[in-house]
Amino acid sequence: MADTTMAKSMVLYHYWRSSCSWRVRWALALKGVPYESRPVNILTGEHRAEAYLRTNPSGLLPALVVDGKPYGESLALLEWIEETWKDPPLLPQEPLARLRVRQLALTIVSGTQPLQNPSALKQFVPDDKARPAQARHFIAKGLGIYEELLARGGDGEFSFGDKLTLADLCLVPQVYNAKRFDVDMAAFPRSAAIFERCSKTKECEASAPHNQPGATPPTS
Amino acid sequence: MADTTMAKSMVLYHYWRSSCSWRVRWALALKGVPYESRPVNILTGEHRAEAYLRTNPSGLLPALVVDGKPYGESLALLEWIEETWKDPPLLPQEPLARLRVRQLALTIVSGTQPLQNPSALKQFVPDDKARPAQARHFIAKGLGIYEELLARGGDGEFSFGDKLTLADLCLVPQVYNAKRFDVDMAAFPRSAAIFERCSKTKECEASAPHNQPGATPPTS
Repeated sequence: MADTTMAKSMVLYHYWRSSCSWRVRWALALKGVPYESRPVNILTGEHRAEAYLRTNPSGLLPALVVDGKPYGESLALLEWIEETWKDPPLLPQEPLARLRVRQLALTIVSGTQPLQNPSALKQFVPDDKARPAQARHFIAKGLGIYEELLARGGDGEFSFGDKLTLADLCLVPQVYNAKRFDVDMAAFPRSAAIFERCSKTKECEASAPHNQPGATPPTS
Repeated sequence: MADTTMAKSMVLYHYWRSSCSWRVRWALALKGVPYESRPVNILTGEHRAEAYLRTNPSGLLPALVVDGKPYGESLALLEWIEETWKDPPLLPQEPLARLRVRQLALTIVSGTQPLQNPSALKQFVPDDKARPAQARHFIAKGLGIYEELLARGGDGEFSFGDKLTLADLCLVPQVYNAKRFDVDMAAFPRSAAIFERCSKTKECEASAPHNQPGATPPTS
């Protein structure tokens, strides 16, 4: 539920299929924060155009313009959203529990997503037909680490215990990418179960790629 | 200065040259937190050995064992250290200021470091002689974005205003890597100046690669 004392002018630049964009759309949906949506089309290179680079010099999606000032990096945005709208909390209270949730989140944010993103693949792999295999390698590696951390953490409904946290908001879009790249999720049963559980929730579904304007079917 | 009511058993697994290890050593030095040091030798593959993977399933350095439980991901560790030992603060108080500092930090943590780390380069670039050029590409790209964010932020002594923050703890080790890979820092004058300024401080220097046990000279 939004805290109306915190009402701000918010414009979200995002791409429907970008996993980092989904993280932020999902957080805003969970907290009930209204924002103006500005789709940016990666396929036509809109993210590399001068207009968008003025908003986010990295050219990455998403970016959030708050009261006229632009900010980027999805995990930084998630932390800010969490600090600004408390309900529902997406980080536990206890410091070492927060550390574990952030370790899980960064296993995706720093350890997995950057290595399978289209611009990295394009730079590293000249042969475009060889790119999916490299994406699969890094996604499977990252999810393997995440799965092992889940196994050590004991079983819960979500990545950390029985409440949704920032870790899930990073995991689920990565699993979506895994499916897109034909990574066999049978090797990652805990992550797969969390994906299924989250997919049945209203906010996850509303913020998912296939429900954004301009989306093409999941198999395309 | 350490808060002694927070005294914990802390064991840091780190590698002298790892930029992510430096971030955490530096934070602990700034806060005056004592810890037991456990060097892990990447050159002999110690980070891939079963013993270390039990501590950190990612095989990445650093890992911090707190009261017997292991944690990884350097930015997660930095956030925990910041929450646990308040003095000196490494994040500003104002939420949008914290967002900017985290955006800067993640420009390195997620946007730069993963793409130039040895294991990613090895997987992506079969020809080992071609690896430094790819590392230089991603380091220069990441520092270019960081530099642009600094330029837009207005001039201060450090990455965000006149106080050291988590952003600097991520930037400086990345600049060290840039120098190692012969990236021309003349293109990034603000980042270069912050590097020089930080290098003159006691805690940065004490936690720097060349002052760790087992270090070889910077040019090697």
